[in-house]
Amino acid sequence: MANNTHTTLTISSKNYSSWSLRGWLLTKFSGLPFDEIVMPIDDPAARAELLLLSPSILVPCLVHDDIKIWDTLAIAEYLNELKPEAALLPTDIRARAHCRSICGEMHSGFGSLRSALPMNLKAHFPGFKVWARAQSDIDRIVAIWGDCLKQYGGPFLFGERTAADAMYAPVVTRFVTYDVKLDPEIVEYGQRIMALPEMQEWIADAQQEAEEIDELDVEF
Amino acid sequence: MANNTHTTLTISSKNYSSWSLRGWLLTKFSGLPFDEIVMPIDDPAARAELLLLSPSILVPCLVHDDIKIWDTLAIAEYLNELKPEAALLPTDIRARAHCRSICGEMHSGFGSLRSALPMNLKAHFPGFKVWARAQSDIDRIVAIWGDCLKQYGGPFLFGERTAADAMYAPVVTRFVTYDVKLDPEIVEYGQRIMALPEMQEWIADAQQEAEEIDELDVEF
Repeated sequence: MANNTHTTLTISSKNYSSWSLRGWLLTKFSGLPFDEIVMPIDDPAARAELLLLSPSILVPCLVHDDIKIWDTLAIAEYLNELKPEAALLPTDIRARAHCRSICGEMHSGFGSLRSALPMNLKAHFPGFKVWARAQSDIDRIVAIWGDCLKQYGGPFLFGERTAADAMYAPVVTRFVTYDVKLDPEIVEYGQRIMALPEMQEWIADAQQEAEEIDELDVEF
Repeated sequence: MANNTHTTLTISSKNYSSWSLRGWLLTKFSGLPFDEIVMPIDDPAARAELLLLSPSILVPCLVHDDIKIWDTLAIAEYLNELKPEAALLPTDIRARAHCRSICGEMHSGFGSLRSALPMNLKAHFPGFKVWARAQSDIDRIVAIWGDCLKQYGGPFLFGERTAADAMYAPVVTRFVTYDVKLDPEIVEYGQRIMALPEMQEWIADAQQEAEEIDELDVEF
């Protein structure tokens, strides 16, 4: 690749868009320099996607040289091939299969959690009442994290930081926003994620966002 | 790996379970021999998963030697590493990024299509009325296929058969079951998928299944 390769990552709201956060963290973790393109949330297409009304092809979207990748897991795989030294995926075959399985679960699942507890970094709802089905999603996520932390010994899900931590980072923020009660080891894992410099940078930007989505607009 | 490695793929109903079909086709395409483990659809856990009420961790689930992979895209990536000669992913970096992007779209999206037009190989609904939001999903899928067939020249989405054809195969069957009107090039692509010996084998097995799910049980 030429050194003058130009890389962009299109994202939308840093406060609301969990998929943008995943793609952005993956790219940051990879070490590949990139320019951000931020779609305003009053853009009708971006808004429809944010409200889960249209397919996720606008954000996150990585354009590297002239290769365009518009799915979060595809971005992770692409970056892992491009920057193997960043170890977005574990090098051990068994751990890699495990990592891809839980990344896949996050990618295709947890719809109840996503709709009932949407990412909203500026908000805080102490004593939030979690709907039973969202609680099932939370229980499954806690089981996934607990299993990883036990098997690989922490501090991150697969020991060192991998794509899995990026995939689950928006969930960490939801647990904080919606005051979800968790066991200490899970709380501590969440604190480690929130303390990452990349997360601190993202959250600071989110706090500066003026735009707000009327919650009544959100379809569950 | 030892030659006596034992491989199993757990699936559920061949008539109803689109994720089972994807995982099964991927494994067949890879050339890796495997034994099927079929979960009966009256198993409460399998049933909850089929009705989209619980996370997708039961099916498809590939166990190779003692490595367990329970997400469809993770299975595709694992098999692609294990059997590169099967070329589940295109060898060209740009085509591979494209393939992963559309596999990812299928994996995480098209919820309206999935719920309004569930896979049901034994059924046929001539003149089925497609709900507007499911139609948007159909339009997007047709655009994806048309773009691939044009860019790579067919006969499959990326020229030769890849993971993308396995990921979209259940959609092909839905278009047949629900009598969806399509342009000739899309119809012909669907016919090529339906004619694959692996698809013929799966459909023949589905036709033999005695069990039926009461449609009223399905949550949309």
